[in-house]
Amino acid sequence: MNDAEDIAPPARSEPGEVGLVEPHDFVHRTPFTFESGQVLPGFTLRYETYGRLNAARDNAILILHALSGDHHCAGIHALSDRKPGWWNNLIGPGKAVDTNKFFVLCANVLGGCQGSSGPSSLNPGTGQPYGIAFPFVTVRDMVRAQKLLCDHLGLTCLQGVIGGSMGGMQVLQWGIEFPGFVRRMLAMATTARESAQGIAFNEVGRQAIMQDPEWHGGAYAKGGGPRVGLAIARMMAHITYLSDASMDQKFGRKKKGKADNAAYTFDVQFEVESYLRHQGASFINRFDANSYLYITRAIDHFDLAAAYGSLEQAFAPVQAETLVVGFTSDWLFPPAQNREIALALLRAGKRATYAELDTDLGHDSFLLESPLLYNLVRDFLERGSA
Amino acid sequence: MNDAEDIAPPARSEPGEVGLVEPHDFVHRTPFTFESGQVLPGFTLRYETYGRLNAARDNAILILHALSGDHHCAGIHALSDRKPGWWNNLIGPGKAVDTNKFFVLCANVLGGCQGSSGPSSLNPGTGQPYGIAFPFVTVRDMVRAQKLLCDHLGLTCLQGVIGGSMGGMQVLQWGIEFPGFVRRMLAMATTARESAQGIAFNEVGRQAIMQDPEWHGGAYAKGGGPRVGLAIARMMAHITYLSDASMDQKFGRKKKGKADNAAYTFDVQFEVESYLRHQGASFINRFDANSYLYITRAIDHFDLAAAYGSLEQAFAPVQAETLVVGFTSDWLFPPAQNREIALALLRAGKRATYAELDTDLGHDSFLLESPLLYNLVRDFLERGSA
Repeated sequence: MNDAEDIAPPARSEPGEVGLVEPHDFVHRTPFTFESGQVLPGFTLRYETYGRLNAARDNAILILHALSGDHHCAGIHALSDRKPGWWNNLIGPGKAVDTNKFFVLCANVLGGCQGSSGPSSLNPGTGQPYGIAFPFVTVRDMVRAQKLLCDHLGLTCLQGVIGGSMGGMQVLQWGIEFPGFVRRMLAMATTARESAQGIAFNEVGRQAIMQDPEWHGGAYAKGGGPRVGLAIARMMAHITYLSDASMDQKFGRKKKGKADNAAYTFDVQFEVESYLRHQGASFINRFDANSYLYITRAIDHFDLAAAYGSLEQAFAPVQAETLVVGFTSDWLFPPAQNREIALALLRAGKRATYAELDTDLGHDSFLLESPLLYNLVRDFLERGSA
Repeated sequence: MNDAEDIAPPARSEPGEVGLVEPHDFVHRTPFTFESGQVLPGFTLRYETYGRLNAARDNAILILHALSGDHHCAGIHALSDRKPGWWNNLIGPGKAVDTNKFFVLCANVLGGCQGSSGPSSLNPGTGQPYGIAFPFVTVRDMVRAQKLLCDHLGLTCLQGVIGGSMGGMQVLQWGIEFPGFVRRMLAMATTARESAQGIAFNEVGRQAIMQDPEWHGGAYAKGGGPRVGLAIARMMAHITYLSDASMDQKFGRKKKGKADNAAYTFDVQFEVESYLRHQGASFINRFDANSYLYITRAIDHFDLAAAYGSLEQAFAPVQAETLVVGFTSDWLFPPAQNREIALALLRAGKRATYAELDTDLGHDSFLLESPLLYNLVRDFLERGSA
């Protein structure tokens, strides 16, 4: 052994991949009362896990997805899959959320459309999808359903709850609702209070869906429905996930194809148009329009200060240590809204840190390749408690 | 006369109102070739004027409107009018654009729907509205048509061309296209190059219109057409005219009516939703969906650097003195895009000033009550040339 080896940090092998995974269904067969007072006789949550639960059942990390996400956040379902789960860059053996150490769990939210109970689920009373007869869902309902899943799996605590955007709202709600169960909260690109502008964008998306003649008051056949309205909603929302700068870098004013021949047309002319149309068209094949209504409404409702009297009162029960991460170019949930979460936690006497990452990728920054973010996440999850 | 009177500034009486005005039609009966190469046998521009043209016919100021604006920028059409023209706060006797001094002119753009020729005009060949058989319109086409109107009125020059947003694009085009005719350019909340984000928002609006089953390829009866799609487009666009801060101040999360009784609904629940729905609903009664397509496409096309090789080359012919005004909270045409116009003019050896006003009212700041802006405009228009 020479000196150089002596002072070298412990070797960290190349991170690996979660690899092939498969989803599971948790079927809760006991009546569940929603925050609205409505009741379902039971519900299903579709979920995935990566890594191994230890003997003490105390090494779990719960991943919480955003509006259009799902339970499939890492690995692949088949060798032919072109894309892995949506947070595969963050989660895996040796990655920032290290599946060699943690048992990682992610469930499709209640109200979703990827296997969990939601408006596209069959109403046993009618044999048809619930449509908008499904109970209204809040972020708190999502979290309470996830807790039942954690209990079903026999988890004794969560080492961390991690999420961005609406996932970050769930993180905060977890720390408030089940304070003794959560060791660390990691919320990114999120808010404690959906803004008027956020509600406004959600409302335009909902109107695009509900005014589509194919919506039929929410009573459409599976695979049918307001595909045009849902695509419009998605196209618009997608702009809010990016930034002016990132769109200029990615597309600028580049023309699509032989554009000089078609300089005057309402068809696709600029690459950014083609990109947005593709985003809209692919979304309608994987998402249910009624779920879009339900989940955006849950986001609109999210306002911790109003729900608990003040943000400090909301955070009063919190026991977890918290890291909040804001991104400079995120104009949907801007840095100030993220910073405010950490400040309110500190005012409430809690352990909280705010980190602001300088990116120009907009709201989606939390999902994208960022060694800085990976280091923040890893260090936060693995350091000894302060 | 006492000392106090001796040193007092000249009395400035309370600004007055333009009062009752009526629109006029300029009918150009000579073939007009659009930038696309398409030709119309003639066209109409609807316009209004305020103040008196002097004997030298050299005291005119041309006002240029934005996407959804029109020729009615000051005064009222009837004593029962609830609202005056859209820039009435800026224009009038004793106001920043002083109709005691200037002959103020404003025309609905070519391609518009408020009396000027556009896709809702009747095609003499078919007896039906042109629809999307109307020639494609560019900002340069708009300006060239306005010049024909100025010639028709016998103007010998324009003391100023003033506009915000797409109106600012026309300002720049005027200074480039007819440099000897324009003394002063005043462009606000605008850009020399529509951004990818701007094109993206325009495209979502167009898709909402064109995917509406009532659009019928643009061939709909007057008063009919894609009203739902147009309302969606307007609701979304309206968000981009405001700011996160102004929406939070104006609406925040205020509920509409007895909201606690209807806490779980997809109907209007928040005031901001009600406001947006109203914006959409009132827009469809005054605007033509095909015009929305044409004018947004004209905006998309606007890129002076691409059209002339570089921004400096574009501005090379400019003779006018220029003031560019950006607004800190404008995220549709952010301050940097406005500053860049002034900087490029300076690099091209022209007289240009950039002023940045600290407002939190977003893109619409240029239209709203602002004594600071009024002073900037008045001083710019009335000071002796440098």
